[in-house]
Amino acid sequence: MLFFTQCFGAVLDLIHLRFQHYKAKRVFSAAGQLVCVVNPTHSLKYVSNRHAVGQTSTEQGSLHSHHPLETVHDPQLIPCMCPLFSCQWEGHVEVVVSHLRQTHRINILHGAEIVFLATDMHLPAPTDWIIMHSCLGHYFLLVIRKQEKYEGHPQFFATMMLIGTPTQADNFTYRLELNRNQRRLKWEATPRSVLECVDSVISDGDCLVLNTSLAQLFSDNGSLAIGIAITASKVHAAEAEM
Amino acid sequence: MLFFTQCFGAVLDLIHLRFQHYKAKRVFSAAGQLVCVVNPTHSLKYVSNRHAVGQTSTEQGSLHSHHPLETVHDPQLIPCMCPLFSCQWEGHVEVVVSHLRQTHRINILHGAEIVFLATDMHLPAPTDWIIMHSCLGHYFLLVIRKQEKYEGHPQFFATMMLIGTPTQADNFTYRLELNRNQRRLKWEATPRSVLECVDSVISDGDCLVLNTSLAQLFSDNGSLAIGIAITASKVHAAEAEM
Repeated sequence: MLFFTQCFGAVLDLIHLRFQHYKAKRVFSAAGQLVCVVNPTHSLKYVSNRHAVGQTSTEQGSLHSHHPLETVHDPQLIPCMCPLFSCQWEGHVEVVVSHLRQTHRINILHGAEIVFLATDMHLPAPTDWIIMHSCLGHYFLLVIRKQEKYEGHPQFFATMMLIGTPTQADNFTYRLELNRNQRRLKWEATPRSVLECVDSVISDGDCLVLNTSLAQLFSDNGSLAIGIAITASKVHAAEAEM
Repeated sequence: MLFFTQCFGAVLDLIHLRFQHYKAKRVFSAAGQLVCVVNPTHSLKYVSNRHAVGQTSTEQGSLHSHHPLETVHDPQLIPCMCPLFSCQWEGHVEVVVSHLRQTHRINILHGAEIVFLATDMHLPAPTDWIIMHSCLGHYFLLVIRKQEKYEGHPQFFATMMLIGTPTQADNFTYRLELNRNQRRLKWEATPRSVLECVDSVISDGDCLVLNTSLAQLFSDNGSLAIGIAITASKVHAAEAEM
């Protein structure tokens, strides 16, 4: 009888370990299956005084602070600007996705793990590569920006933003991964909300930053492949399990 | 009989999975246990014409090329310069470790996974933080350098070099990991050999590069903790198993 109990325990242990191993592999697997080719947004002209415009345009501009809007609960009530640098559209968070699709023709990809292939990385700064990403019941915006913080020295800044409130964004973790020529670079962080300005995330440097030389090391024929994975953070996952 | 065979199979499977799971956890664990506090090398003055000195000093200088020395098999026969920027010592690869210990008082740490705590990150560029790391039967040199590639904009460059030949270096992979404030940055690459110049690795940008803002995000009270792990690469590991 003791032998059968031990066997049963071993089988249960086996099932548990198989699940744990699957989870560990899933979380750290190199790259997703779905590859999305993203061309730079040539047509968008850089407006250097965009931030100033945001600050002067009525009281809505004051919502674009860098601090989380902890007191706001209903995303529908929050007006926000278009997260793209050249567009002065303003509307509610709930309609940002349809604005980005219809006005800027930004594609939406589905799935928790995808590969974002940014083409023509040699184009002069400023240039943006943008895609929307739908997973875990939310829309995320991936932005890669080539910008010259120091004149004559362009850098690449990559970040992911949740099309939702900062409180909602706190429930997720995103990972960007570059992998080529026996080199691997991974960045993991909590996404920012689109209610915070992309410009401020980049000027704070709170994102994946690549020098031109490093970007070239990871590029293949002028294209940069970035593996993206989004996961619900622990607290959120624990709540979902309850 | 069939039941007993199945039970035995399940137990074997369990042992295999426990080993795999342990390996997966070990490879991707956040940080090692051993913490090493490393102060900046205040006493070393930056010699900007170091590279020029290397190039003009007899025929030994010609060995400091950026290309792997594939034809050389015996490390004892290879003369090399001290990998520190301010020292003009020259000797064989085999005695670099004792030179670094005795002349520069650089400590040696043991173990495959350690945490390197670089203090006083606010000090002006150029500054170096250096440690030797003994594992897998070899000595590695970790260098963090604060340097102004663009005037007025200091950056941090972190790399690991094998105190050995480029062919030996190809057998390993090193990983540097920063983890703080819900952000994680990982860099994995093959270490370079000390026969290649640290300066050239940094000027190529083929290392972990941090802007000041990103370094501040990962720093705690002026100190930057970097988790280090070294593993034998697949080919080498497969040879060891044979």
